[in-house]
This record gives sequence, structure tokens and C-alpha cells, in this order.
Amino acid sequence: MAMPKSLIPLGQSIKKQRELLGLSQEKLADRCGFDRTYISMLERGKRNPSLLNLLRLADGLETSVSQLTEVFNGTESDR
Amino acid sequence: MAMPKSLIPLGQSIKKQRELLGLSQEKLADRCGFDRTYISMLERGKRNPSLLNLLRLADGLETSVSQLTEVFNGTESDR
Repeated sequence: MAMPKSLIPLGQSIKKQRELLGLSQEKLADRCGFDRTYISMLERGKRNPSLLNLLRLADGLETSVSQLTEVFNGTESDR
Repeated sequence: MAMPKSLIPLGQSIKKQRELLGLSQEKLADRCGFDRTYISMLERGKRNPSLLNLLRLADGLETSVSQLTEVFNGTESDR
């Protein structure tokens, strides 16, 4: 089952939390040990991160993977 | 950066939910379009699933990624 649009909500969720913390993409990248372009791609829904990367990201964003992925809750039910 | 033990809680969470639904690994694999060995590896914390795979898995488990990853929240017994 292809879910091409599924990564967009994560990107929005990341960006929202990053801005809430007043962090630039670069600063967040530094915190996580990622490249700034990876953060940029994630925020645009262009990357499909692994769980370990999500955990690092959540850590840098001072939140949890659970919280970051809450945007997907309920979207699975409309079919 | 390797976080070798980080995937174990996810595996436990998957297994718990699968058994709650009374599904075999094979049946769950069928639901998600995965191989049974992939489910087996996940449950033993031997795979680092991507977000898209987690979404498929959560769907097959009739839950959400948020719920499946709550085990990483590090807080008390909030479920």
C-alpha cells in the first residue's frame, strides 16, 4: 500500500517543534548529529527516517517520537 | 551513532500488541505486506524500521506509531 503523502505531516510536526524551541535547522542538525540538509528534507517530507533517527531527532527537539508521530493518529482510519 | 539497545522496547511493544490481537507473526506479516522474518527480527529488536514501515505495521496492529513508540517516552507508566 503506497502512502506517498504520509511523510508530510511528520515534516510539519518537526518544523513546528523546532520553531517552538527557536532553533534554526542548522542548530537542530548540530544537536542531533545530522546534516542540515537532512533536517530540511525531513521538514519537506522528502525523507523516510528510521526509528533510530527519529529517536535522535526527538531528543534534539526535546520531545518524543510518540509526540512527533501523533499527527498520524486517526489518518489511517479513513479508507 | 549506534544505539543497539534502543530497538528492543519497540519489539516488545509490537509483540505485545500482536498477541493481544491473537495474530501469528505470519498473519501480521500478511496484513502488512511484510515477510514473516521481518516481523520476527523487529520483535527481537534486530531491525531499525523506517517511518513508512512503522505506519504499515501500526495499521496491521490496529494501533498508531505514537502508541507503538510510547515505550521510548522514558516517563512512568503512562499509556
